[in-house]
Amino acid sequence: MSTSPVITLTSDFGLQDPYVGAMKGVILAINPAAAIVDISHGVRPQAIEQAAFLLGAAWPYFPPGTIHVVVVDPGVGTERRALALRTPEGTFVGPDNGVLSAALPDPVREEASGEDKAAEVGLPSGHRAVSLSNETYFRHPVSSTFHGRDIFAPVAAHLSLGVPLEELGQPVERILALPPFRARRRADGSLAGRVIHIDAFGNLVTDVRCADLPPQPVVEVGGERIEDVSTTYGEGRGLLAVIGSGGYLEIAVAGGSAARHLKADVGMPVVVRPSGR
Amino acid sequence: MSTSPVITLTSDFGLQDPYVGAMKGVILAINPAAAIVDISHGVRPQAIEQAAFLLGAAWPYFPPGTIHVVVVDPGVGTERRALALRTPEGTFVGPDNGVLSAALPDPVREEASGEDKAAEVGLPSGHRAVSLSNETYFRHPVSSTFHGRDIFAPVAAHLSLGVPLEELGQPVERILALPPFRARRRADGSLAGRVIHIDAFGNLVTDVRCADLPPQPVVEVGGERIEDVSTTYGEGRGLLAVIGSGGYLEIAVAGGSAARHLKADVGMPVVVRPSGR
Amino acid sequence: MSTSPVITLTSDFGLQDPYVGAMKGVILAINPAAAIVDISHGVRPQAIEQAAFLLGAAWPYFPPGTIHVVVVDPGVGTERRALALRTPEGTFVGPDNGVLSAALPDPVREEASGEDKAAEVGLPSGHRAVSLSNETYFRHPVSSTFHGRDIFAPVAAHLSLGVPLEELGQPVERILALPPFRARRRADGSLAGRVIHIDAFGNLVTDVRCADLPPQPVVEVGGERIEDVSTTYGEGRGLLAVIGSGGYLEIAVAGGSAARHLKADVGMPVVVRPSGR
Repeated sequence: MSTSPVITLTSDFGLQDPYVGAMKGVILAINPAAAIVDISHGVRPQAIEQAAFLLGAAWPYFPPGTIHVVVVDPGVGTERRALALRTPEGTFVGPDNGVLSAALPDPVREEASGEDKAAEVGLPSGHRAVSLSNETYFRHPVSSTFHGRDIFAPVAAHLSLGVPLEELGQPVERILALPPFRARRRADGSLAGRVIHIDAFGNLVTDVRCADLPPQPVVEVGGERIEDVSTTYGEGRGLLAVIGSGGYLEIAVAGGSAARHLKADVGMPVVVRPSGR
Repeated sequence: MSTSPVITLTSDFGLQDPYVGAMKGVILAINPAAAIVDISHGVRPQAIEQAAFLLGAAWPYFPPGTIHVVVVDPGVGTERRALALRTPEGTFVGPDNGVLSAALPDPVREEASGEDKAAEVGLPSGHRAVSLSNETYFRHPVSSTFHGRDIFAPVAAHLSLGVPLEELGQPVERILALPPFRARRRADGSLAGRVIHIDAFGNLVTDVRCADLPPQPVVEVGGERIEDVSTTYGEGRGLLAVIGSGGYLEIAVAGGSAARHLKADVGMPVVVRPSGR
Repeated sequence: MSTSPVITLTSDFGLQDPYVGAMKGVILAINPAAAIVDISHGVRPQAIEQAAFLLGAAWPYFPPGTIHVVVVDPGVGTERRALALRTPEGTFVGPDNGVLSAALPDPVREEASGEDKAAEVGLPSGHRAVSLSNETYFRHPVSSTFHGRDIFAPVAAHLSLGVPLEELGQPVERILALPPFRARRRADGSLAGRVIHIDAFGNLVTDVRCADLPPQPVVEVGGERIEDVSTTYGEGRGLLAVIGSGGYLEIAVAGGSAARHLKADVGMPVVVRPSGR
């Protein structure tokens, strides 16, 4: 059996408006057998970093060869490039504004470190990208405000039918990327991180990678101190530091909302120290 | 390959309740190969005009022959008819309360102009409709409060299996329609329109069709004056008038929310004048 | 044609976070032909009873053999068992905390009556369950915070490929269940019930089964008295008692929200008396 590859969608469109439906219609008009899956349309308006986080937290679970479309695109209609990026794991389609970071390994994203916004990085081996310029694969007329519908959706649909990447436009060697989600290690051995996402339970996902945790870590956040790291949300009471399912340290409240408890927002600092220091 | 036609769903059910799931279950129990796509379930409760707008903004992108089900149905269980309407582009299934306007060309909807609510219009050539009366194609027992599950979903599923339209009930010649979304042209050449939809970005979609814009238009909305029309959201600063992707003039704020900026609501007046008048 | 069985998902994950997307990716990586349908991801965080209600209100409309996954799982990573339950109507996969009540007939759930929380009940004939212990069918590494992704989704995907239930783990004879949604009949013949769900329209779904209604019922709720039971939301004015599409009595306001009108919350008492008493 040859099943058509899955196409995923991530955007800041929400689910009330007709935008997501229009994109799905365009895809199905080109490839009626396409299997389309929503990752999230709840990205905050134009929040490129959140889009990269959400896509990065979901795409690794999809079958190899999946086509991931991400449309968080404040620069739509301006000079920013539209890209398709093929990696060993899948194909990623979206604007060249940093959202495609999600597809890149952390060491590659390091090249953008120190930057406040997205910076250009070179593609590693096994990764190819093209700037979408072949209008044959666009929907016409192409609007200047909705490339999700007129460029990214039709390109993804054509890719799902087997159109080669190189058909879609000119090869590019460098694309915009965000620094990796990774707390800074300070001279004293502590990790200086921040909240990068707040989920619907009010759990605070931080950029402290669990693999980087010192033995017997102590976590400081919002003026509180957590002496232990839990492996489940159900253990203990009050504020918890939990090994999150995405590989990042999370701050949680058993049966409650850490976001409400700490009046937290994305960006809130989190420090992890080795015990006793 | 003979793929089953796509079935789209539009409703005011939201996504928390079991109603949309129940409709999908009913469809899949009749046609396990059905491809079901949500357009929006975020229509405000019983907002027939909004439903017609959202469906009309999405359906043109779907493959010809798609079956569009719309369930915004304040009169469910009363005397209002249930309809299936076949056009050259697809089949539309829903209550006869004006929501199916979305399937009709603007000139046909003109017949309803001047009316405050939906008014009867004659079907144009190439359009056929039936009143759903053949209970063979209903789910039983038929409730009097959820025709989405018991009438519209099963009828759509049977249509997707190839049941002829005429099998479903008696032909009807006239159906209820809303006037087209179109600003009124005044004697002085200006266009008197209104906000018809506010999207998740806070963009105000108006009923001023871009095709009707005068050269060098000046837009007045909420006590503010916009001297220029942009082609992207990224251009300029502050309040913008933008050529929207759906063919209507939109009011936006670059990187912000026009709805918040203007404290706007659906219905807010918008006037477009030729420059210098 | 042998279509893969439908897999439904119900959770408290919401649609903003990457969790639902990750589960779908895991399923599609195992069974690329899986047809996945969302029932609701809008369950209140960790609200087991609401999850059981929503699943129970939707699953009966799906084709026999459908696989229903429900992940409302405050005890994830603790000692609570993970189950797959096969009934004559379908297969239900989730934690053993009462959410699978939705799959059990009311008389079986009666065994849990009088309990405040879920209590163990014996499985009726035609029902088999296993405790998910065969790690061959899990995704690895298995996190201790997201069994939806690592246990329930992959198990459902393998079931959809035809893996026999008994392969998945040890048989269990008793599972946790919630009492049925059913108002208590008092000595004077009245029914003492409560609001069990508030839908997006503000309709109050009660646990008074329409089949139990006395002739000429009078409904008392929130200090108001409703003298008549309607069959549609469109009939009458003000507060209505309506025969709901799920077989339960609902409290509604024609064209408005009963929840707002009565400042109602889940749990609000509802009494139904035979007329004139």
